Amino acid sequence: MNWKRHLPILQWLPEYQRTTFSSDLLAAVIVTIMLIPQSLAYAMLAGLPPEVGLYASITPLFLYAIFGSSRTLAVGPVAVISLMTAVAAGNLAVQGSSEYIGVVLVLTLMSGLMLTLMGLARLGFLANFLSHPVISGFITASGLIIAASQLKHLLGVSANGHNLLELLLSLFAVLDQVNAPTLVLGLGSLVFLYAARLGLKPALLKLGLGARLADLLTKAAPILAVAVTTWLTYALRLDLQGVAVVGEIPSGLPPLTLPSLEWGLWQQLFLAALLISIVGFVESVSVGQTLAAKRRQRIDPNQELTGLGASNIGAAFTGGMPVTGGFSRSVVNFDAGAETPLAGAFTAVGILLAALFLTPLIAYLPIATLAATIIVAVLSLVDFKAVQHTFHYSRSDFASMLATILVTLIEGVEAGILVGVTLSLLMHLYRTSQPHSAVIGRVPGSEHFRNIERHEVETESHLAILRIDESLYFANARYLEDRVMDLVAQQPQLKHLVLACQAINHIDASALDSLETINARLKDAGVVLHLAEVKGPVMDRLQHTELLPSLQGQVFISTFAAWEALHQLSALEPAQSSSGTQPTQPQPTH
Amino acid sequence: MNWKRHLPILQWLPEYQRTTFSSDLLAAVIVTIMLIPQSLAYAMLAGLPPEVGLYASITPLFLYAIFGSSRTLAVGPVAVISLMTAVAAGNLAVQGSSEYIGVVLVLTLMSGLMLTLMGLARLGFLANFLSHPVISGFITASGLIIAASQLKHLLGVSANGHNLLELLLSLFAVLDQVNAPTLVLGLGSLVFLYAARLGLKPALLKLGLGARLADLLTKAAPILAVAVTTWLTYALRLDLQGVAVVGEIPSGLPPLTLPSLEWGLWQQLFLAALLISIVGFVESVSVGQTLAAKRRQRIDPNQELTGLGASNIGAAFTGGMPVTGGFSRSVVNFDAGAETPLAGAFTAVGILLAALFLTPLIAYLPIATLAATIIVAVLSLVDFKAVQHTFHYSRSDFASMLATILVTLIEGVEAGILVGVTLSLLMHLYRTSQPHSAVIGRVPGSEHFRNIERHEVETESHLAILRIDESLYFANARYLEDRVMDLVAQQPQLKHLVLACQAINHIDASALDSLETINARLKDAGVVLHLAEVKGPVMDRLQHTELLPSLQGQVFISTFAAWEALHQLSALEPAQSSSGTQPTQPQPTH
Repeated sequence: MNWKRHLPILQWLPEYQRTTFSSDLLAAVIVTIMLIPQSLAYAMLAGLPPEVGLYASITPLFLYAIFGSSRTLAVGPVAVISLMTAVAAGNLAVQGSSEYIGVVLVLTLMSGLMLTLMGLARLGFLANFLSHPVISGFITASGLIIAASQLKHLLGVSANGHNLLELLLSLFAVLDQVNAPTLVLGLGSLVFLYAARLGLKPALLKLGLGARLADLLTKAAPILAVAVTTWLTYALRLDLQGVAVVGEIPSGLPPLTLPSLEWGLWQQLFLAALLISIVGFVESVSVGQTLAAKRRQRIDPNQELTGLGASNIGAAFTGGMPVTGGFSRSVVNFDAGAETPLAGAFTAVGILLAALFLTPLIAYLPIATLAATIIVAVLSLVDFKAVQHTFHYSRSDFASMLATILVTLIEGVEAGILVGVTLSLLMHLYRTSQPHSAVIGRVPGSEHFRNIERHEVETESHLAILRIDESLYFANARYLEDRVMDLVAQQPQLKHLVLACQAINHIDASALDSLETINARLKDAGVVLHLAEVKGPVMDRLQHTELLPSLQGQVFISTFAAWEALHQLSALEPAQSSSGTQPTQPQPTH
Repeated sequence: MNWKRHLPILQWLPEYQRTTFSSDLLAAVIVTIMLIPQSLAYAMLAGLPPEVGLYASITPLFLYAIFGSSRTLAVGPVAVISLMTAVAAGNLAVQGSSEYIGVVLVLTLMSGLMLTLMGLARLGFLANFLSHPVISGFITASGLIIAASQLKHLLGVSANGHNLLELLLSLFAVLDQVNAPTLVLGLGSLVFLYAARLGLKPALLKLGLGARLADLLTKAAPILAVAVTTWLTYALRLDLQGVAVVGEIPSGLPPLTLPSLEWGLWQQLFLAALLISIVGFVESVSVGQTLAAKRRQRIDPNQELTGLGASNIGAAFTGGMPVTGGFSRSVVNFDAGAETPLAGAFTAVGILLAALFLTPLIAYLPIATLAATIIVAVLSLVDFKAVQHTFHYSRSDFASMLATILVTLIEGVEAGILVGVTLSLLMHLYRTSQPHSAVIGRVPGSEHFRNIERHEVETESHLAILRIDESLYFANARYLEDRVMDLVAQQPQLKHLVLACQAINHIDASALDSLETINARLKDAGVVLHLAEVKGPVMDRLQHTELLPSLQGQVFISTFAAWEALHQLSALEPAQSSSGTQPTQPQPTH
């Protein structure tokens, strides 16, 4: 067993140095400050008590430091996964109940096990099913749903709906019940956080602050909003005036939890856990790769699966929720100078201290502030520009993106992603079911052959050369049959057909059947089939099949060799009938 | 509207000639004789009263003659579709009940509508989802299930089971209850039919009969078995000794039936109807294409969908069951000399006469004879040789074939086909997720470039040329990112990377994103990205994207042009640092 590959900590820890330590520690402080409000907020988004968000930012970070292959990825609760968690658990239990928390623990464990198994089985390629337009459309739609779902907290009203439209309509119906103090706190936080994101850093730089300090203050904006609104609520007893607050939350170490092993529950959560795993992995791995590339480092996608799997299993046993590598926190970690996963472990210590000592202070934290934090975070996920670019680049990619967005908004997250994946697969199959191919003729006086429709080339009425520009497999095998038989039907004097195979890297069993069928049908129609320029590995596999022995024609080393042999043939036997009798043939070259 | 395309009858009927008439009529007589016992048997296999099989061989044949594009295809009930019908309807109603017949009518109508809609929407390519190993494995497994399910009729016992093993065990348990007269009739028919299939024709030819007559007698073997065993049962009153017989069946025209429009039922049958449609279409279209090719004719797969759709809609309204183009009857029709679909219409008239006048005669027809007919017919579907060939040709194709067979045998027909399709798609995606690519170098003194791992070629430490041998799309986009970043991580002095794109026919939106990501990551790593030999249509689409403006490098017309430009560059600036500053560049060629 290759320990260093499966336990990346063995690669970096032995070489750890004092200078790296200070960089990692500073990064951890910045990420901790950013992560506290985010963890509370995403737990709320997932329908869980706020402390669950903190718990999910402790054990998983330690485990990722041991098993993860990215040096700078920061794991924890993220917006889209929290939404998917809320939807999946909400189907089976009531938000806020202890059953609900139990369902989330099972979901977390299942997702952890799936990720780990996929990593061990090296199934990272499964993430390729999610095309970029589908994942980007899905994240945009999720961002819109999340933002809309938080509006009620900002306004201090109750509203519910199964999709975006219902949600907005139900909000509209209770607009007269808006709680003014909540709105002031919520809107105030929103404007402050948004302004901080857009313009705080340049403004601080202008005021003469150092770049690092300006950066730190900008990152601290959310915790500042939390502190100020909590203090205001406490000082003015706004909770008595209808401002919803987080309330008393237990302080202490993360609890040890044992997820239920009830088989029925596992079956019901299977699809949700799989989608959460794959979406989380895709998000995480693309962040990890982007950051690694900046320092010419590499991450191993299959080891990432194991790292994320271990993190989620850890979360499931310590009162957490599904986690993955988050975009913004990882970028902050990277920018703040983190050099090894030890920065993540230090962050975990920071969050642990918060869970132990800070929780009494946030009893008066207004929920509206957390909602504002979420809205500002997720609106950066909404990317209409990507929709526009996709529209201009490719109508079929746009169609799967739009379907993903609409179905996610109307039917929900799981349906959205499944429809998107199915559509993009269908369109891929449709596209490859008609492989590029061209009937080619000889460029006069040369050994080159070109498409007869685009170039002035020599052709023969008794000979056709068909060049196929793609590998042959089940989705395009039938098209090839059609293409060949159309050619035969159109060219009544045809006696020899050459398939030029220089672009074929692979022939699967379906395509082999099709070639045998084509050979048999051509024989019936009195046409001899030849092959040309078959690649070595393809030829090796064809050796042991029935295609070559049953081939009436031969396998030529090049298209030109085929042309020379069959061209001469017709010159020698101009009056041969089309009855399908076999002409004298030169020895096959294979 | 192109009437001739949508109504193929307009192509052949106006040119119809007297000589064709006699060929078509003779073929119809032979097919009718063959079809009567087959129709009765497949209705029984589907769990329906025998007359339903006759009804399903009347209207559909007329409608196919109008809408179908094959000249010689013979439609009607077929074994595999009958099995799938029995499974789907058996989930919702008890065999033999009037509800059951109602469910089958809905299934037939749904399948007809799906086929027609797929034809009008030109979705024939959907059949490409079924790879040959999956369909061949599915048919083999279905053949085994069907044969096993008929054994009880041959033995005159009752047995049931949800899969092959259960069925055989339950048969074994009641072996002591075997009805001797039934066994004699059943086994006698089986041996006779099998012998007829194997050796009757050569034997008759030896006796000096003409080829045509010998052929006709061979085709008539099933009806002979039916006649003899019916007469024996009637004469010896074997029905009183426990031989199960068909019993009284109504004679007359097919009834007009109105399938239920209950939405819940339609929803429950959706998947079954879809699978029946696609399997039926795949079977039918491959028979149709094989026969058409023998006469250099063409069939239009999308028009075939419409033709089969119309046939099934017709069957649903005239007391029938799902139908498709059958292999054996179509071959018989073709061999007997049928030239136009009018042969099918004549066959329909023949079956109609049978429904009107023959039904009283078959009250004493033993069910064991029908079971023997089915067993002999389906055993020709079982193709272990194909399994063996697939095993030798491709392990991955074999895996999906084996999974299809095992799941079909153990879990059932629907699960079997779904697992097969999913597996073959997964394996295709896995294969294409790692596109062929090679780092290439210059063959000394030439303008040719070859794989550096296989050939002695010139390379440069500051320059790498990566040739990609396949189109780029979502499943392989991520692999390309990995491949490039691995290259960069391995070659520390690298400053220029050229992607040689001569084999790329298509770049989808995911791959475009990946190229942009690669460009950005390379920029971060201080490497300049260039493209070479981009095809015209691909370049046209890239023109309007952000890739080209953000490309630090350039687009070269050929790999050699890239080599010359970047090779010179290094010669001129040997001491350039790797800080990522941009070297002076020649003008882009695009």
